Amino acid sequence: MSTLIKNGIIATASDVFKGDLYIESGIIKEIGLKLEKSRCHVIDAEGKYIIPGGVDVHTHLNLDVGIGVSNDDFYTGTVAAACGGTTTIVDHMGFGPKGCNLHHQVKVYHEYAKNNAVIDYGFHGVIQHINDDILKEMKDIIEIEGIPSFKIYLTYDFKLSDEEAIKTLLRLKKLGGLTTVHAENHYMIKYLKKKFIDNRKIQPIYHALSRPEESEAEAISRIIHLAYVSDNAPLYIVHLSTKLGLDYIKRAQETGCNVYAETCPQYLLLDEEKYNLPNNEGLKYIMSPPIRKKHNQKALWKGIRDGNIQVIATDHCPFSFYREKQMGREDFTKCPNGIPGVETRIPLIFSEGVMKNRIDINKFVEVTSTAPSKIFGLYPKKGTIAVGSDADIVLIDTKKEVVLTKKILHENVDYTCYEGMKLVGYPILTMVRGKIVVKNHDFVGEKGYGEFICRRKNIS
Amino acid sequence: MSTLIKNGIIATASDVFKGDLYIESGIIKEIGLKLEKSRCHVIDAEGKYIIPGGVDVHTHLNLDVGIGVSNDDFYTGTVAAACGGTTTIVDHMGFGPKGCNLHHQVKVYHEYAKNNAVIDYGFHGVIQHINDDILKEMKDIIEIEGIPSFKIYLTYDFKLSDEEAIKTLLRLKKLGGLTTVHAENHYMIKYLKKKFIDNRKIQPIYHALSRPEESEAEAISRIIHLAYVSDNAPLYIVHLSTKLGLDYIKRAQETGCNVYAETCPQYLLLDEEKYNLPNNEGLKYIMSPPIRKKHNQKALWKGIRDGNIQVIATDHCPFSFYREKQMGREDFTKCPNGIPGVETRIPLIFSEGVMKNRIDINKFVEVTSTAPSKIFGLYPKKGTIAVGSDADIVLIDTKKEVVLTKKILHENVDYTCYEGMKLVGYPILTMVRGKIVVKNHDFVGEKGYGEFICRRKNIS
Amino acid sequence: MSTLIKNGIIATASDVFKGDLYIESGIIKEIGLKLEKSRCHVIDAEGKYIIPGGVDVHTHLNLDVGIGVSNDDFYTGTVAAACGGTTTIVDHMGFGPKGCNLHHQVKVYHEYAKNNAVIDYGFHGVIQHINDDILKEMKDIIEIEGIPSFKIYLTYDFKLSDEEAIKTLLRLKKLGGLTTVHAENHYMIKYLKKKFIDNRKIQPIYHALSRPEESEAEAISRIIHLAYVSDNAPLYIVHLSTKLGLDYIKRAQETGCNVYAETCPQYLLLDEEKYNLPNNEGLKYIMSPPIRKKHNQKALWKGIRDGNIQVIATDHCPFSFYREKQMGREDFTKCPNGIPGVETRIPLIFSEGVMKNRIDINKFVEVTSTAPSKIFGLYPKKGTIAVGSDADIVLIDTKKEVVLTKKILHENVDYTCYEGMKLVGYPILTMVRGKIVVKNHDFVGEKGYGEFICRRKNIS
Amino acid sequence: MSTLIKNGIIATASDVFKGDLYIESGIIKEIGLKLEKSRCHVIDAEGKYIIPGGVDVHTHLNLDVGIGVSNDDFYTGTVAAACGGTTTIVDHMGFGPKGCNLHHQVKVYHEYAKNNAVIDYGFHGVIQHINDDILKEMKDIIEIEGIPSFKIYLTYDFKLSDEEAIKTLLRLKKLGGLTTVHAENHYMIKYLKKKFIDNRKIQPIYHALSRPEESEAEAISRIIHLAYVSDNAPLYIVHLSTKLGLDYIKRAQETGCNVYAETCPQYLLLDEEKYNLPNNEGLKYIMSPPIRKKHNQKALWKGIRDGNIQVIATDHCPFSFYREKQMGREDFTKCPNGIPGVETRIPLIFSEGVMKNRIDINKFVEVTSTAPSKIFGLYPKKGTIAVGSDADIVLIDTKKEVVLTKKILHENVDYTCYEGMKLVGYPILTMVRGKIVVKNHDFVGEKGYGEFICRRKNIS
Repeated sequence: MSTLIKNGIIATASDVFKGDLYIESGIIKEIGLKLEKSRCHVIDAEGKYIIPGGVDVHTHLNLDVGIGVSNDDFYTGTVAAACGGTTTIVDHMGFGPKGCNLHHQVKVYHEYAKNNAVIDYGFHGVIQHINDDILKEMKDIIEIEGIPSFKIYLTYDFKLSDEEAIKTLLRLKKLGGLTTVHAENHYMIKYLKKKFIDNRKIQPIYHALSRPEESEAEAISRIIHLAYVSDNAPLYIVHLSTKLGLDYIKRAQETGCNVYAETCPQYLLLDEEKYNLPNNEGLKYIMSPPIRKKHNQKALWKGIRDGNIQVIATDHCPFSFYREKQMGREDFTKCPNGIPGVETRIPLIFSEGVMKNRIDINKFVEVTSTAPSKIFGLYPKKGTIAVGSDADIVLIDTKKEVVLTKKILHENVDYTCYEGMKLVGYPILTMVRGKIVVKNHDFVGEKGYGEFICRRKNIS
Repeated sequence: MSTLIKNGIIATASDVFKGDLYIESGIIKEIGLKLEKSRCHVIDAEGKYIIPGGVDVHTHLNLDVGIGVSNDDFYTGTVAAACGGTTTIVDHMGFGPKGCNLHHQVKVYHEYAKNNAVIDYGFHGVIQHINDDILKEMKDIIEIEGIPSFKIYLTYDFKLSDEEAIKTLLRLKKLGGLTTVHAENHYMIKYLKKKFIDNRKIQPIYHALSRPEESEAEAISRIIHLAYVSDNAPLYIVHLSTKLGLDYIKRAQETGCNVYAETCPQYLLLDEEKYNLPNNEGLKYIMSPPIRKKHNQKALWKGIRDGNIQVIATDHCPFSFYREKQMGREDFTKCPNGIPGVETRIPLIFSEGVMKNRIDINKFVEVTSTAPSKIFGLYPKKGTIAVGSDADIVLIDTKKEVVLTKKILHENVDYTCYEGMKLVGYPILTMVRGKIVVKNHDFVGEKGYGEFICRRKNIS
Repeated sequence: MSTLIKNGIIATASDVFKGDLYIESGIIKEIGLKLEKSRCHVIDAEGKYIIPGGVDVHTHLNLDVGIGVSNDDFYTGTVAAACGGTTTIVDHMGFGPKGCNLHHQVKVYHEYAKNNAVIDYGFHGVIQHINDDILKEMKDIIEIEGIPSFKIYLTYDFKLSDEEAIKTLLRLKKLGGLTTVHAENHYMIKYLKKKFIDNRKIQPIYHALSRPEESEAEAISRIIHLAYVSDNAPLYIVHLSTKLGLDYIKRAQETGCNVYAETCPQYLLLDEEKYNLPNNEGLKYIMSPPIRKKHNQKALWKGIRDGNIQVIATDHCPFSFYREKQMGREDFTKCPNGIPGVETRIPLIFSEGVMKNRIDINKFVEVTSTAPSKIFGLYPKKGTIAVGSDADIVLIDTKKEVVLTKKILHENVDYTCYEGMKLVGYPILTMVRGKIVVKNHDFVGEKGYGEFICRRKNIS
Repeated sequence: MSTLIKNGIIATASDVFKGDLYIESGIIKEIGLKLEKSRCHVIDAEGKYIIPGGVDVHTHLNLDVGIGVSNDDFYTGTVAAACGGTTTIVDHMGFGPKGCNLHHQVKVYHEYAKNNAVIDYGFHGVIQHINDDILKEMKDIIEIEGIPSFKIYLTYDFKLSDEEAIKTLLRLKKLGGLTTVHAENHYMIKYLKKKFIDNRKIQPIYHALSRPEESEAEAISRIIHLAYVSDNAPLYIVHLSTKLGLDYIKRAQETGCNVYAETCPQYLLLDEEKYNLPNNEGLKYIMSPPIRKKHNQKALWKGIRDGNIQVIATDHCPFSFYREKQMGREDFTKCPNGIPGVETRIPLIFSEGVMKNRIDINKFVEVTSTAPSKIFGLYPKKGTIAVGSDADIVLIDTKKEVVLTKKILHENVDYTCYEGMKLVGYPILTMVRGKIVVKNHDFVGEKGYGEFICRRKNIS
């Protein structure tokens, strides 16, 4: 089946122009002026933005964190993603059983996703320990399994030591892989958590205070230097939340380090005051790193405009406020970390970014779709509107006004962090490989339609 | 007549993809995969880059500098431009008779260009004095004449005082116009020139020493502050040559000033040592600002990558080495200022920039075509490959190796500053509004084919 | 007569120690432990700080500003200075009759001061125009008259052009003199003043708004570059008020420019909100540059700690609130510029600086006495407690609490900008060349006791 | 016995003046003009600088590094120090037997020093492991033993983890102690050393390459953040060698961190090229951190001038070139780390610093004597020329020219890193507590004259 989308305003990471899109076999076949095609489905996009579908490279579907499992699986999570204008996710796999090899989790995640996902997907590998077998195994994961990126943690139980981080960075550099890193200093946090709990400082705000800006900045500074010494291995900092961390990244980029940064809507739009909400509502915002003092937001938006931050992803990892989050009621350290967000990313950044003139439409497309696709080996299949690319297309109605509220969202969780927020501009149609999967907020796609994407090696 | 360009590698400021271009009535009508069209001229671009034609927003054709006239007129100059892959110029008009109004020079320049130019062109207005009549006249020049940008000088006889600069900036801001500025401190230069000449320091190197980095940096700092106080009027710094000046621009951009910067290939690739060449060859490089110490080059390339410098133009203003330049033999101050460059910009920046990995192909398209088009109101007619845009197309053969030498160039002057330089990658076909004007270095276009472009107001 | 000051805590710019001072013939003869001297006046300083007398290098006594004369003459002004712990002033002379030579004002000022001043004094020359005679005359002023520093203005009627500034800087550099500069951009201010007045924005706050931070910063940036090109002539920025200006100074110092900076208590302690006080009280704070937004204060204190700002002076230039200042009631531009301050500098900086831990006692001595003495050729006669130096001594009682109020001050004007401010620590004794001139707030000295100080050439 | 030093030029950290010093019972009793004293030893210092004796807060006498013991003990080392104008050292103790408590090494070092040292001395504690006993013991070491500073290592076998560093910082902060730190990233170095040795890269230059600038900078960044989170505990970085590390320190100081920095003459004057000297001479320069590329020197001198680096010490730790250093001939990792320097610090910094105008005489006194005394609790007993201070006095003859060579030095080792260097200005007399110990290069003091100094808690 073929489709003709007429008269829209097509936006890429550098251009905006009026034109028609002709789609055949799930591929963008032609971009033209007043194209005339017979026997095809026609969509009138007059006055609407046509953008490449969103690419969210940081989700945690089905994530088992020990004390709970993130509430969205590959079906509900990708339905929510699609409804929010995202057509591809790259999911960060969870740790498997202690000591398991890399293929173990790949297999598990294929099981999770197959027959469930409604949009296309890839996986990031995860490193829980390093030994010669693991290092050797990486080659197949990258070259055969199509998973050329891995996450390491500098905090939590499976944190890597500096020595292990160096080994990982060197090996992935050699294989053309990309190391992504959760950068927080474990022992600062450990010390502060203990100090607060010992003093009965148990409320949600102490979650933020126990993970101060320095805990992120220090870890970023360290891993940047380790990567540079490790043959200038490419590095990708996930969920950057602080100006201080950004300053280190900027400095590194200026001196030739090969480092990318990702932030998330929550760090751009929410601030620490949320933790002080009454009735334990602060628990809703418990995630790591925490949301920060307001001045960081301005710095992060600027980092996006200046190109020091290349990607906006979500770190989507929802837990029920009335269920799992309540575990933290008497002790913030007991609350599972994570918030929902996969559905609201595109609407939030469009409304707060483009419509409020913090970024232009080209930068919007770049950070939500083109850049993550390029960095993670999805481009040009994903991430742009160009002939030959997958017809992953989203239409945005810039006049549509929406009040965000849990009720209209499809995320499988009982709250949204943006309840009551007024947005201007909203996705009204989502197409994946030429097939409409969402129309006016309603999911009309098919369970299991999503395909695994065998990604290419890192481009840098 | 229609044309089909097949199988090229199409590059825009954000994308690179394989595809076909279909051109009708001088407009890009379709971009597609394996397009099939009957009855049209077909060009095989297999393995070649297809880029939007170069846009050079800083030329001086026919420029009368009192002691001479720049050697290229609108015919020879645009032929050279086309041969070098440039399809649009915006020429900086010269001062007219003292006290003349703005329309005077507009009329003169239309005479110069009409029936001569072989590619499309626009003009920048020039301010030689400010009074109420001039300020009033600006409105028509912008709105009726299609000239929404003006140049002011902070040095030379027609320099504006701070007071006049403020008036200009305020007025243009109000009218949606853009103030471009030649930023050098007049009195520093006057003092140093006199000091050197008084001491019989007459060689070309004293041209550089009499215009030190501080003379540019000071003037940039000053005009940036004046523009900010003048209602944050948009400002465009022409021919930036120094790291120090760039630092001021960067700082201003970081604090919300509305300032753009342009540099030129000579500041990116040549250095001060040229002034010390034997046999007075240094005279070939006399231009203002002068070429600088080598460390500035690195900073300027970085400024391009980081987005602080948006445009690479040429300041093309050629004088014969054996004729006009010799006036400076006994006294550098007597030498007319200016060098050729309109033909070599695209080849130099492609070879030294893209092929040497200083910038990628997207950034190359951005700084040589897309960004200047956007800033100066030419976009989307010019500056990109998108449906609806003019079919101004250049093909680059990345395998073609060329040794730059005066003999192969079309600029109407007896030397090139890049004699003997080896380039990898060169334009092999130039098309303006669907018509091929250059093929394999040979001009095959038509005198007078170029059209004046009525530009739109500044976008910011 | 000789004096022995016993058991005090002697503080210099680097040391603090307990000891006795023995003074003979107005000179510090010995510093010792438990000195025993017969037949001398003994002062018990147990528990008190003994500091070198304050040196205020920016006062305007008797200043005729056309629409009024600053209310303190060399008698009342120096009495106030002495009561506030200042033992030396260097007064900035006013412009004389248009076109007068440099000796003219020197003579006038000697007349003003002789038989009046109660503490020692010097003068800064002032440049109101530049020609060959003036340039030639500078030599005698420096070498014979003992006045090796001059002020130039970049705003007001007698502002120097860039060309004149260069001439001044070069000449003074050659003669070993120091150029001090009032740095504000004249035409920014002119434009803004006119704009506000044309729109009936006449209140005191518009004084501040018509002299924005950029007007100071631009002028600082310009003069720094001019000085650097002028053979790296030494430069001294008077009354720095902004972070932005400080940033330029810092940068210049870092790159080897020979530039010093002075700020004043009003810029460290007061902010722009004062201009909005009811009942036209804002007029009390009309001075140039104006007091600034609060964030500048923090930056200036930091500049002092880091050594980028070397001097705290006062710019003392008082006008009566009920008389002269009222001229500005209907139009802020009609209000004479200037505030009192010579008496409160030492108490304010001691209480707000030392007692609040913004600076330590050594830095306090440095910026209020030692550094200005070194920079302006007074050292080691003035500016420290060392044998051989003049016995200009101030005792500070750190336990004394004083509420600043006009009533207790000796400045010949009807208000203080610091009315009601609570200070901890206050000078309780002032000695000039071995003679006590102030004791417990009371002036006990002698009219005309002050001596003119023939200063030495600039040390740098 | 009492002494009168007449007519010298007395220099402190802020002043320079002519005067006489009268010394009684080892204490400076009077500073005066033309003092007349009967029955005392008189020294004529006409034309000589009189400075406070040098304070070297980083030496390693008797240091056992496992494969050897540093060649100077407390007798030979302090004789050398005295001959070079240093009158006080604070020695960094070596690790004792694994698991020993803090008192163990204190006792050992008292044994080393007593009856041997010829100048006064103190010790820095060293942390080799952390547990509750050690943390508890710190109190007595500080309060009873007079040792209020400790060193931790971030590399080598006894390196502390982040967790242990936090515990140390918190505890010392609480006790008023100061944490000094050897900041290098252990695992970067481990990886690089292995890589080089595995590839038979065994020459001295690989010592430098295996400890790159990033290995120092990362560790500095980390410990600064750890200290800040640990209640902003004061921190002292020993032997800073890189611009990159300095940048982090500067940034920390600017944001309110309580961090001091020390560098050494070798980092200011020598560069990496030394490692490439023929005949294995590079082994002479093996120390950690290594000497660096030349551009770092300029940055470090600037850091001294700007006050970001407060102290110049030596890290004196000599090994014989012909004996111990040869262990590294076939493998740089086998060479004991350390160089001599305690004798040459004052002469080098005076000649290269003061005489070459990199710093003035006041800054010289500050960084070699006053500041280390203040930071480490020796002031005002040590570190200045003021009444009541110990009469630790050095005379410098600014006209004396010396060619540095092993032969004239007293360090108990067979080479100096500065062989053949020409110095202008040299210490000609050293006095400790009123007693002359060195006269014209000859040691005339007494073994065991030196006293242990019970230091006070940190001042900040």
